[in-house]
Amino acid sequence: MTNNNSIEAELLEEMARWPIFDPHSHIDPHRPAARHLDEVLGYHYYTELAHSAGMPADRVAAELDPDVRARNLAEYLDRIDSTVQYSWLLEIARTFYRFPSDRITPRTIAELIELADHRRDGEAWDRQVWETSRLEAVFLTNDFDDPLEGWDTSTFVPCLRTDDLVLKLHEPRTIERLRSASGVDVQDQASLREAIGALFEKFVSRGARACAISLPPDFLPRPASPRRAVTPIRKAIHGMDLRPDERDEIRCAVFWTLAEFCDDFRLPFDLMIGPIRNVYPDGVLGGRDLFDRRVSLYDYRELFNHFQGVTFPVSTLSPDAGAELVAYSWIFPNVLPMGHWWYSNVPAFIAADLKARLQAVPKVKLLGYYSDAYKLEFILPKFQMYRRVLAKVLAEDAIRGRGWTVEQALEVARLVLLENPRRIFSGVGRPASPSTKI
Amino acid sequence: MTNNNSIEAELLEEMARWPIFDPHSHIDPHRPAARHLDEVLGYHYYTELAHSAGMPADRVAAELDPDVRARNLAEYLDRIDSTVQYSWLLEIARTFYRFPSDRITPRTIAELIELADHRRDGEAWDRQVWETSRLEAVFLTNDFDDPLEGWDTSTFVPCLRTDDLVLKLHEPRTIERLRSASGVDVQDQASLREAIGALFEKFVSRGARACAISLPPDFLPRPASPRRAVTPIRKAIHGMDLRPDERDEIRCAVFWTLAEFCDDFRLPFDLMIGPIRNVYPDGVLGGRDLFDRRVSLYDYRELFNHFQGVTFPVSTLSPDAGAELVAYSWIFPNVLPMGHWWYSNVPAFIAADLKARLQAVPKVKLLGYYSDAYKLEFILPKFQMYRRVLAKVLAEDAIRGRGWTVEQALEVARLVLLENPRRIFSGVGRPASPSTKI
Amino acid sequence: MTNNNSIEAELLEEMARWPIFDPHSHIDPHRPAARHLDEVLGYHYYTELAHSAGMPADRVAAELDPDVRARNLAEYLDRIDSTVQYSWLLEIARTFYRFPSDRITPRTIAELIELADHRRDGEAWDRQVWETSRLEAVFLTNDFDDPLEGWDTSTFVPCLRTDDLVLKLHEPRTIERLRSASGVDVQDQASLREAIGALFEKFVSRGARACAISLPPDFLPRPASPRRAVTPIRKAIHGMDLRPDERDEIRCAVFWTLAEFCDDFRLPFDLMIGPIRNVYPDGVLGGRDLFDRRVSLYDYRELFNHFQGVTFPVSTLSPDAGAELVAYSWIFPNVLPMGHWWYSNVPAFIAADLKARLQAVPKVKLLGYYSDAYKLEFILPKFQMYRRVLAKVLAEDAIRGRGWTVEQALEVARLVLLENPRRIFSGVGRPASPSTKI
Repeated sequence: MTNNNSIEAELLEEMARWPIFDPHSHIDPHRPAARHLDEVLGYHYYTELAHSAGMPADRVAAELDPDVRARNLAEYLDRIDSTVQYSWLLEIARTFYRFPSDRITPRTIAELIELADHRRDGEAWDRQVWETSRLEAVFLTNDFDDPLEGWDTSTFVPCLRTDDLVLKLHEPRTIERLRSASGVDVQDQASLREAIGALFEKFVSRGARACAISLPPDFLPRPASPRRAVTPIRKAIHGMDLRPDERDEIRCAVFWTLAEFCDDFRLPFDLMIGPIRNVYPDGVLGGRDLFDRRVSLYDYRELFNHFQGVTFPVSTLSPDAGAELVAYSWIFPNVLPMGHWWYSNVPAFIAADLKARLQAVPKVKLLGYYSDAYKLEFILPKFQMYRRVLAKVLAEDAIRGRGWTVEQALEVARLVLLENPRRIFSGVGRPASPSTKI
Repeated sequence: MTNNNSIEAELLEEMARWPIFDPHSHIDPHRPAARHLDEVLGYHYYTELAHSAGMPADRVAAELDPDVRARNLAEYLDRIDSTVQYSWLLEIARTFYRFPSDRITPRTIAELIELADHRRDGEAWDRQVWETSRLEAVFLTNDFDDPLEGWDTSTFVPCLRTDDLVLKLHEPRTIERLRSASGVDVQDQASLREAIGALFEKFVSRGARACAISLPPDFLPRPASPRRAVTPIRKAIHGMDLRPDERDEIRCAVFWTLAEFCDDFRLPFDLMIGPIRNVYPDGVLGGRDLFDRRVSLYDYRELFNHFQGVTFPVSTLSPDAGAELVAYSWIFPNVLPMGHWWYSNVPAFIAADLKARLQAVPKVKLLGYYSDAYKLEFILPKFQMYRRVLAKVLAEDAIRGRGWTVEQALEVARLVLLENPRRIFSGVGRPASPSTKI
Repeated sequence: MTNNNSIEAELLEEMARWPIFDPHSHIDPHRPAARHLDEVLGYHYYTELAHSAGMPADRVAAELDPDVRARNLAEYLDRIDSTVQYSWLLEIARTFYRFPSDRITPRTIAELIELADHRRDGEAWDRQVWETSRLEAVFLTNDFDDPLEGWDTSTFVPCLRTDDLVLKLHEPRTIERLRSASGVDVQDQASLREAIGALFEKFVSRGARACAISLPPDFLPRPASPRRAVTPIRKAIHGMDLRPDERDEIRCAVFWTLAEFCDDFRLPFDLMIGPIRNVYPDGVLGGRDLFDRRVSLYDYRELFNHFQGVTFPVSTLSPDAGAELVAYSWIFPNVLPMGHWWYSNVPAFIAADLKARLQAVPKVKLLGYYSDAYKLEFILPKFQMYRRVLAKVLAEDAIRGRGWTVEQALEVARLVLLENPRRIFSGVGRPASPSTKI
């Protein structure tokens, strides 16, 4: 083990020197770092795991004082201190707050709250976390009506999130937001398309480098039939009642339109496949969604075939769906396995998926990892977790098992962590003319 | 490896000193240990594996003499001596019978039969196996009409098994047994409910600490509609023919009623999800059931939401469903991953599931292992198999991978093996008044 | 690690001395070895991975000169040199061509093309590859109308491939080929059966030792109803249009007939479950098929029950279906897990499946590996890949984990690699009289 251990350590040490390119997060560019511990502990992983372990949801209610909320949660942390999510927390406490203890408990929480208090430091603290983590670029998740103003979009990179357009077009609020954001008087399918085009124009002109969406298991993308969709879309826009098949028609038509604009504007289209929202409605905020494991990428075959010019970085939620993603990435040039998402973002599942991806998918297509973080502080410990798994897999499978040199292993690690994401999300930008299809 | 090996050995040595709390078995409390080798070799794992490897089913027919049956089976053991199930057998032979050989063969079987003969020792042998194994409590699987008399229910703990009520209510024999066991003249839905309540009364008063059921993949629990079920239930009780949808209505209604009583009586409700009975009807006894891997816990969402006061220890049969159970246990406070069941009870699958559970489920919710044994002798080797996997996973993932101390690892091991099952199946007993819902 | 490493090396060294028995390939017995590098690089793994990594499909078009095609592909090999498939290529280059470089690149490709040129050596080269690889027997994949003449069928063993009969009976070309190959004037169900019987006669008389078929996920085998199938079969034979249910009826009826003849002729029936053809129609030749992971062997229960006299070596395509195959092989005497197929033929998936098979399936039923190769040169590196995984699993799980001796481990390895395939595919041949069922 000594040999393997030292090779692993060598790989990890080298990777720890690299910058971090994070192609998916939920960071707020106006307030990227946490200025109070409550913003760290409020991450749904902690509230939902504590709740799952017995904490009543109201102990972390939104109306509570941040100090109280943090102290309440601390009472339950000993129940979840075996989880990998807790290890991120401890790593944040040690790295960013110089927290001296081993465990975060009701006795040590007051000290930690004080150490983590950066309310007076303002943006200086954002910069410090950014530098300590060696961040290079962090992708955002922007609502389609985000004004995209007030920050440097070369570091906090915009990404057009489109769930609302596809899944909630029938809600009056969505149409209002779309009219206001696009400046188009959306009344029917044609003006809907025009409005979406205007969003792409705006996002790309302000530096967006990806479009993204999360899709439930019952969504089956299929070629849009403008004729079939025209009436349901008009009904949705005018707030009329819709049959289930009409809602489905709308989802399909809007989704297909988005893919067409991704093609026109050469934007990668991140597909995050699997979540079902609100499966456990009494859970804490952000801790209510789950999935049905009976999904298959076979449902996406027409999409992948039709849009051969669009790059689809794909994340799947159900851990047991990972092997199928390897096969689809191996065959379809435009399907790329991206990161390890949410319920699959656990070292046991990462290791299994990563081994297979490294063995069977062209190395230039591997998009290693993203943080999915809401606060900057989480990016480093999450990437470190991934780097540890990557170092172990490379040391055992590639160097020991297949005779690679350390240099070969690091070359692949660098592709996976840095060069592939940089190249694939390079934001080459919009082509000469936007879509004129209808 | 030396280091890891010695840490693993240290962990295992410590765990081997602990008592065993076994929250699910099929032990007969009147005859817990095997008094003849045939009772060990008759375990379905050996007969079905030998049959699968070429032994005709009639070589172990019930009407044969026990010695003959054991000798017949011994002729095929060399074909299955690579399996982990065979390793339990060898461990029993060595630990309990001081069998001196390495392999059980037609040449050594006579000696083993003699060594294993405890017919004259009676209950003294039961006690000796109990003590050698350091057993603390062994949960039973009791038919709903078990008189529950004649043994110490603090060591052999009753558990109400309810498959027959849910899946076979339409069989006349079930209704007769229910009337006789409950003392209620079951004639309709109301009296059915009354009878089931009487069963819970009796079981809880005699020390039951769990209700349990195994459910096929096509069972979809849904909120009971008493109005919809009233006629099918009456037809079932009176032996009339039922349409498939009526049978399904009955299954749902009875199951929901059971969950309500678990709520009222504060009994954990063990869900064992997946088996399909009699898929291979010509197999040996106990070796005919399999599964369809296309199952999802998403089908159980309404149950988990509705009965937030009921603890559901869940076992899934299909090994590839294990990752989903991790996610559902991570989100739902009342869903607990329990043991590694039947076709999933193989070190390769245990290791994969265990790693993920330890990384992503609150440690206080992990119900490590149960034996599922029919004879006391199997409890120790099965728990030892689990302890070995646990020691390895903790040594590699937690101590080496995440920097835990040996003490931290043992603390989690103790929770998983002992303290969680003790607490969760503590049998706090019935509340003030039983259910009056109808 | 030192100890484990040296045990692994010892196991591997011993296995490398054994002959190779390869129970499934696509070798052409008239031209078994590659006489030009293009025949090696033309393997779909390289063209599809290079295409997936950005190579336009026309760079390897059939009409190009072999040298040009090889050089074109070489431009993309650096993008896939992390894959295990590339490692086979490098092993071939070093073992058979004494290629001195580490990487195959546009700069080194000319040298490799020259070294690999055996066009003048003819059959001497076939023999040399055969001997260097220590091949003992290589099973073929023969079309039902293959004349089966011109080679030694004790080394290149015929295998009746039946996809066309089951899946394409409605194509006029199939009926013509069947008439011509069987000498039967196929006009209806009875003469169809007679013709299929004649194929079995011929194949068995010429040394065939298996029947094989690959089946899509939507195929559900069910007992044939001759009455129901009679009209659809007649319509298919006479080129009339068929409804989807009629096509399905034909697939079922022909498949069931094949199983009956396998029973009569005592031929193992290899089931290769899962592929969907042409999911990505614009892919390179051989690189267009994928799967839907939502499959279950439960769909095959009636087949396995009905044909208890037929041995079914089963391969499943979706890697996550491997655990279910373990359970079905553990229960059904006539179901045997065979090799690691196509998208599952990656060390990460092989290791996971192999561990579970070794722990839970009788050792006499394990059919370790087959090459699936199109050219002889691939058999050795593919078997070496499998042997490495097997050596590692045996060293870690069996020797270190369960205390086996090296001899015990090698005994199992020998069964899995050699003795089981030899025995199960022994070609005991046809019984006294062929099927007379109708």
